[in-house]
Amino acid sequence: MDGIEELRTAVCAANQALVRHGLVLCTWGNVSGIRRDAGLVAIKPSGLPYSELTPERIVVTDLSGQVVAGRLRPSSDLHTHLALYRAFPQIGGVAHSHSHYATAFAQACRALPCLGTTHADHFCGTVPVTRALRDHELAADYERNTGAVIAELFADRDPLAVPGALVAHHGPFTWGPSPAAAVTNSVVLEAVARLALDTWQLNRTAAAIDPALLDCHYQRKHGPEAYYGQRQDQ
Amino acid sequence: MDGIEELRTAVCAANQALVRHGLVLCTWGNVSGIRRDAGLVAIKPSGLPYSELTPERIVVTDLSGQVVAGRLRPSSDLHTHLALYRAFPQIGGVAHSHSHYATAFAQACRALPCLGTTHADHFCGTVPVTRALRDHELAADYERNTGAVIAELFADRDPLAVPGALVAHHGPFTWGPSPAAAVTNSVVLEAVARLALDTWQLNRTAAAIDPALLDCHYQRKHGPEAYYGQRQDQ
Amino acid sequence: MDGIEELRTAVCAANQALVRHGLVLCTWGNVSGIRRDAGLVAIKPSGLPYSELTPERIVVTDLSGQVVAGRLRPSSDLHTHLALYRAFPQIGGVAHSHSHYATAFAQACRALPCLGTTHADHFCGTVPVTRALRDHELAADYERNTGAVIAELFADRDPLAVPGALVAHHGPFTWGPSPAAAVTNSVVLEAVARLALDTWQLNRTAAAIDPALLDCHYQRKHGPEAYYGQRQDQ
Amino acid sequence: MDGIEELRTAVCAANQALVRHGLVLCTWGNVSGIRRDAGLVAIKPSGLPYSELTPERIVVTDLSGQVVAGRLRPSSDLHTHLALYRAFPQIGGVAHSHSHYATAFAQACRALPCLGTTHADHFCGTVPVTRALRDHELAADYERNTGAVIAELFADRDPLAVPGALVAHHGPFTWGPSPAAAVTNSVVLEAVARLALDTWQLNRTAAAIDPALLDCHYQRKHGPEAYYGQRQDQ
Repeated sequence: MDGIEELRTAVCAANQALVRHGLVLCTWGNVSGIRRDAGLVAIKPSGLPYSELTPERIVVTDLSGQVVAGRLRPSSDLHTHLALYRAFPQIGGVAHSHSHYATAFAQACRALPCLGTTHADHFCGTVPVTRALRDHELAADYERNTGAVIAELFADRDPLAVPGALVAHHGPFTWGPSPAAAVTNSVVLEAVARLALDTWQLNRTAAAIDPALLDCHYQRKHGPEAYYGQRQDQ
Repeated sequence: MDGIEELRTAVCAANQALVRHGLVLCTWGNVSGIRRDAGLVAIKPSGLPYSELTPERIVVTDLSGQVVAGRLRPSSDLHTHLALYRAFPQIGGVAHSHSHYATAFAQACRALPCLGTTHADHFCGTVPVTRALRDHELAADYERNTGAVIAELFADRDPLAVPGALVAHHGPFTWGPSPAAAVTNSVVLEAVARLALDTWQLNRTAAAIDPALLDCHYQRKHGPEAYYGQRQDQ
Repeated sequence: MDGIEELRTAVCAANQALVRHGLVLCTWGNVSGIRRDAGLVAIKPSGLPYSELTPERIVVTDLSGQVVAGRLRPSSDLHTHLALYRAFPQIGGVAHSHSHYATAFAQACRALPCLGTTHADHFCGTVPVTRALRDHELAADYERNTGAVIAELFADRDPLAVPGALVAHHGPFTWGPSPAAAVTNSVVLEAVARLALDTWQLNRTAAAIDPALLDCHYQRKHGPEAYYGQRQDQ
Repeated sequence: MDGIEELRTAVCAANQALVRHGLVLCTWGNVSGIRRDAGLVAIKPSGLPYSELTPERIVVTDLSGQVVAGRLRPSSDLHTHLALYRAFPQIGGVAHSHSHYATAFAQACRALPCLGTTHADHFCGTVPVTRALRDHELAADYERNTGAVIAELFADRDPLAVPGALVAHHGPFTWGPSPAAAVTNSVVLEAVARLALDTWQLNRTAAAIDPALLDCHYQRKHGPEAYYGQRQDQ
């Protein structure tokens, strides 16, 4: 299992970053990562306190969810992560938490429009909210169906341009090229959700910004001629 | 008094956990625990700063409130704790605080419905709010009557499935199998109260989730076929 | 100046407690104390960072505001403190800050009614808000007039039962038997102001609690038969 | 380049102060300083974590934006800073962040009126909000145009009396005699924006205070007969 120990180490660190960024209470969050070449996913074990996580305690499964390494049970949300890896071949990591503001949006069943450049710098447009699961989707394969309703939202969206979604009545899932990037997207989603809530306290009718401003900010950070940050050769 | 020193140690630690979790200001909170076999309750002394608590300073009383060990006065809320132990034979610990969001709900005299899966994972339905005490209930046996109006709410509820209540114009009481579990339920109640407040800022008409979703989440964590967390033999 | 060094030490510590309790940003707060027998007041020097405070840097003045010890200028709010000491002969310390929630109430020109037992345990009824100062009261003796409009509110209130007030468009002043007690009352005022704001988010019509509940809580902590806390001889 | 190393050290420290005061998440903020005599500006490098900043990594440019010292790219907001230095010859430092409350005002496109003395002590009147940029202003020279719409607001305002502005849909810029003073003004702007939001939660119609009160507070701290703080010779 070449490279799997590096993946477990990265996944362990990304789970602990959830705590450092104030996104989790109790054990309410989990991060995973994937090795596409090996067809293996590494994920937090279920219910284990973050302070007891070590790379060896990270569970490794195949894409059907069979455990191939680790002595503990995987996160109960494993099958949501797996559904996202199958739906979004571009991604390398997934993060889930019940972070306060993003969860409030999810509970309110409200999508998060782009109200300013902070949002535009990271999410190229609205962060969508899923439909509610139907009763038969709750009754069997609940976690896999949670992934499926997220994937539905990206039929006409690029999951790397909008690297997250809100699951109705539940909370946020984010993703990215790596487990660490998935966590950063959770951090940013939480910040822009909080900004949106207070923006609406000040102006009930605040709406999505001019697409030209959205594009201007997103492209200066992520476009082919991006000039934010340092060149790789420096 | 077999096992009483262990109980005092657990009650001391649970009171200090109130501080660590940001649930108390000044001396506004108290946790107790019970030894059902011995008929003895251990509780925080009244008004003592948490930093000065030691297991020996925890007061031990019988179920009528008579002090049987400890040189300090018990918490002024002792008789509310005792009323809850008598009403709910299944519980082993009680926690009371004036934590911000739960107290705001109590002051607003609003019950806390289950608006999402964060709530459903811990409280199987609405956290109820008591009626106001009547003047004669304030004039004598105020603390015991506070316990009684809580108990009224559980005539048709399982106190372990909904391990907490909001006392109108006052604040939250939570309980559980142990003093530590009672505190964890206070931590969760505070988090879900905060979530509910901000959910309503975003959607004034957000209401209790589909009972099927509530059941799905509560059962995966607490039901006979729960698959959250690790097996005991691991 | 018998006892003045003890007073300076107490005033220095009380000013630093404003920081520890999160009540001040920059240098926006000041605490003083009085020795009634000597007719002397000790107060924070103006504009000095709290980290540079030492007992020797605390300024000592007489009741007319003449500096009698200390090389620095006294707080620009000195004459408000002096006016309160003259108006309320029972008090031994005064604290002023721009703590967030109490200042929001002051800016909104709203009094803070007693919405629950947290408030009732410390303030026996509404914390009042002053009228706005008139232009001639701003033009000369501004700080003394600020004290005067506070004192107006206590013509029919006991300043030790309601140990604080909100100055319209400005912020809170609190007091107590000692500088430390004045700071504790600022801490509590901030907490109950925050509770009131969120209570009203949940219930726009929440109003002052039943006077019997207010009395029950206030008396169990402060009345002649108080049973909160420990007896002095313990 | 006489004095430039001192400027780089001051700019490095001022950028790190953004973190210490809780004004930035990720790398969302930048501070610069100017040497008017040398015609040189020192600014944070783009995208670099604050923990990796050193005085040597601070980029030095001339007033046209040409890098004259430092191996890294300057902040992508450089041309906004330069536009402000050209428009406001009195200023010595500029700070930009996406601090939460100021950004919520910017996203809501609301100016921040002076609702109380906390505001009056630092900003002599309303902190204005810019108009939105027009599409052609976004398409080319976006950052320079951002500076220009700020400067428009100060045609009839003194930029040292009101040392900040809100860029619509974006966030705050503040300035002052030095980089450190610019950061302090960001700290104060964030605090008074938060106060205004909660003041309006309590009183929807709260409006700007009496000009006499504004003047009284601003002058006692900044006027020719200011009596706040310590004399320079002490």
